Amino acid sequence: MKFSELTVEIVKKQSFLCIGLDSDIQKIPEHLLEYEDPVFEFNKQIIDATHDLCIAYKPNIAFYESRGASGWKSLEKTVKYLNDNYPELFLIADAKRGDIGNTSKEYAKAFFEHMSFDAITVAPYMGKDSIEPFYSFSDKWVIILALTSNSGANDFQFSWLSDENSYLYEKVLNETIKWSNNENTMFVVGATKSEHLKRIRKIVPNYFLLVPGIGAQGGSLKEVVINGINKNCGLIVNSSRGIIFADSSENFAKKAREKAMELQHEMRELLKKYL
Amino acid sequence: MKFSELTVEIVKKQSFLCIGLDSDIQKIPEHLLEYEDPVFEFNKQIIDATHDLCIAYKPNIAFYESRGASGWKSLEKTVKYLNDNYPELFLIADAKRGDIGNTSKEYAKAFFEHMSFDAITVAPYMGKDSIEPFYSFSDKWVIILALTSNSGANDFQFSWLSDENSYLYEKVLNETIKWSNNENTMFVVGATKSEHLKRIRKIVPNYFLLVPGIGAQGGSLKEVVINGINKNCGLIVNSSRGIIFADSSENFAKKAREKAMELQHEMRELLKKYL
Repeated sequence: MKFSELTVEIVKKQSFLCIGLDSDIQKIPEHLLEYEDPVFEFNKQIIDATHDLCIAYKPNIAFYESRGASGWKSLEKTVKYLNDNYPELFLIADAKRGDIGNTSKEYAKAFFEHMSFDAITVAPYMGKDSIEPFYSFSDKWVIILALTSNSGANDFQFSWLSDENSYLYEKVLNETIKWSNNENTMFVVGATKSEHLKRIRKIVPNYFLLVPGIGAQGGSLKEVVINGINKNCGLIVNSSRGIIFADSSENFAKKAREKAMELQHEMRELLKKYL
Repeated sequence: MKFSELTVEIVKKQSFLCIGLDSDIQKIPEHLLEYEDPVFEFNKQIIDATHDLCIAYKPNIAFYESRGASGWKSLEKTVKYLNDNYPELFLIADAKRGDIGNTSKEYAKAFFEHMSFDAITVAPYMGKDSIEPFYSFSDKWVIILALTSNSGANDFQFSWLSDENSYLYEKVLNETIKWSNNENTMFVVGATKSEHLKRIRKIVPNYFLLVPGIGAQGGSLKEVVINGINKNCGLIVNSSRGIIFADSSENFAKKAREKAMELQHEMRELLKKYL
């Protein structure tokens, strides 16, 4: 998906919501276990109920991988269902991959060729040649971890580099923008770190940020928007558990829609005010 | 697998060789494509031909994942075959995973429960709570990226932290040893960085190091041993392409054995001299 297509969707839907498909088989409604592929059925119903309220879906690969080959089948079917029925949606593989060049190339194939995701999240620790292979696919995006939402972000991401007068997470931004642009790269910035969004916007004013951490992890949507919005919105805010596991009865999809709608309404108001 | 079992195997086999199963379906001998699962058949024949010369196998997960669910089937069968036939071997999932706690827990389930690997490689960027979930399985190991073998290692791993008088990769060691021990944790140190092994051994004298990068990537085995060996050997040195793709004819397994034997002989001599 191209930059312009993504921004058009945001304006059209008045939403910058990404719904995280962290579809843990142990948390989905019990009645779905009768289906041949309960996780796919769960995703399908969630997607059908929410696709007009969000601009992206983000399957969290771990929740599929934990069931091995059969989990990968659920994932492949989910991605195909989204591509076939809702091609306007931006699909993010939340995979946090990254390895030496010939290996990253295989991960790129997994998510961009074998499955048709639009974007993949990657970890920056191994540097440029671990990320570059993901750029050899046109209209695909790399989403680089910068400042994450978890407590462990404090362990390394805030290491102070006095020679460069920056935190490590800022160096990740400063380095990676040398070999990327805002039409092929985004950055992960946790909603729980919204006080850092202003520093981040000084370095990457025009890039999209993928923001997890509202809801279950405690970040505030309004703070994220005030500190992080740019002229194209430039934000994709994710909610997973707060939407998909809002209810565990047969009404789960309806409840998920209600939760997604609450967020979309909030986003619509924030876009009116701040965009 | 326990620390003591691993060290016993090293002494018994006079080897600290790990064979990397980077089993790219496009590089395996053509005659294997007739089999129902060519990659599993390739792995099986490589394993049967080399298991007495090495102490570990390391499937590189990307080369399975790039074929989706069917690649995961080849991987599951390979791990089962190894566990059923050669339980003395140490099995490393080279996966470079790492995410927020509830997600890392799912990755741990994938590799330690759904499949029975002994160890998994993880990326440290997201900090303590992204690695901790891997520790809740007994006799399983976490192998944390410290200083990798690729050129991109220079981008962030060598960032100088003057407040701590250390490189970032040294901080990764210094921090992670606060919440790990040498019986549940190893570190990845590239063979191409052997001049740093002495610095690393000052911080982690008793930990095992997983060392990729000899062979195709250009590192020297002797240099690694001189600078990195400890009283328990403390080294697992990986070779992938140099062994498994030494030959593409019907003799591939025999050739792989020859290449593995060359390394094992070199290791035997180095162990005699330096252990």
